[in-house]
Amino acid sequence: MSRQTAPDPSRRSQQSRAAILAAAADLVSEVGFAKLTIEKIAARAGVGKQTIYRWWPSKGAVVFDAFLAVSEDASGSLALPDTGDLAADLRAVLRPTADELTDPAFDNTGRGLISEYLVDPDLLREYRERLLDPLLEVTRDRLRSARTAGQLPADTDLDLAVDLLYGPMYYRWLHGLGAVDHAYADRLVAAVLRALGATDGAADGAPDGG
Amino acid sequence: MSRQTAPDPSRRSQQSRAAILAAAADLVSEVGFAKLTIEKIAARAGVGKQTIYRWWPSKGAVVFDAFLAVSEDASGSLALPDTGDLAADLRAVLRPTADELTDPAFDNTGRGLISEYLVDPDLLREYRERLLDPLLEVTRDRLRSARTAGQLPADTDLDLAVDLLYGPMYYRWLHGLGAVDHAYADRLVAAVLRALGATDGAADGAPDGG
Repeated sequence: MSRQTAPDPSRRSQQSRAAILAAAADLVSEVGFAKLTIEKIAARAGVGKQTIYRWWPSKGAVVFDAFLAVSEDASGSLALPDTGDLAADLRAVLRPTADELTDPAFDNTGRGLISEYLVDPDLLREYRERLLDPLLEVTRDRLRSARTAGQLPADTDLDLAVDLLYGPMYYRWLHGLGAVDHAYADRLVAAVLRALGATDGAADGAPDGG
Repeated sequence: MSRQTAPDPSRRSQQSRAAILAAAADLVSEVGFAKLTIEKIAARAGVGKQTIYRWWPSKGAVVFDAFLAVSEDASGSLALPDTGDLAADLRAVLRPTADELTDPAFDNTGRGLISEYLVDPDLLREYRERLLDPLLEVTRDRLRSARTAGQLPADTDLDLAVDLLYGPMYYRWLHGLGAVDHAYADRLVAAVLRALGATDGAADGAPDGG
């Protein structure tokens, strides 16, 4: 005697959604963003194109969510360590960022995503609200804490500080100008702390090895 | 009695080429890169699609050349001033860069170009060879000159230095994080000179007004 199970649309939706995100992440690594299509994602995920368009307006939006799912798995909640050693805490952010940028899977997905949000203001807004602004805010929080501790001048320009921390590595990576590794992350952190006029206590912590 | 003129294919080619570049530059400003097509460029320039494909492999390549034509008109030959005042000479590069990035026409063209070269390694190579690498090299030349003059430490990392100079403004502009203006350019130059450990003579030249 067979037992019939009532279909569970909510659970089916979740499974389809997960399959679509996994397919998008795999395909963007395999074929690159430019050659990725909604059709290919649908075929790989075993769903119809219309299922994807029900949830996402564009290829870029699907890839963005796939990318965000990977980032959230990897990093958990967003916060900078605050050990009191500002240089070490900033290295603890920039070293994993270097690892991530040079991971081939991320490199592909990241370039594809950036390529889209540069010419799609809605996607850029979503990226900023969901990922970039929170990252910059926790970074400014860590710098504020150092300022309160007297390790940074009272008039430290926190907006310029985050541009200095994240901009150079991003620029170097996007244009393929040179190695993006822990040694580079460490040199960058040291340079930024000099730029900000950090006290010796904040800036001269010796890197604890690569 | 009519006089017949022999056709001049070379001159006609030059005219077509100029018309195509002008059409591409205008259209990318008007409709944005994403909605631009080879068909639209051909129609505006009054040439056939096949004429465009004879000279350029892709939409990105046409826009790149249009962009380069504008840059070359605007800036002439590529070199940094060397007045002996390093801070002033770097401001003389970064202030016009800020102006250019926030010019609506450039903003559109620039975003479209970057969006393409991020996912097109051939176009990135062309961009680097024709525009970015020469800019970075003349910048390093100016920093070498300051190093020779004793205004920068002998072990100054010139590759990190150019990332620090150009990366933060690029990052801020691409993501719309804040104003990209002369005041920002000046703050950035001052911060980079502190990061590099410039002597007071190089770093403390008061900005000469906006």
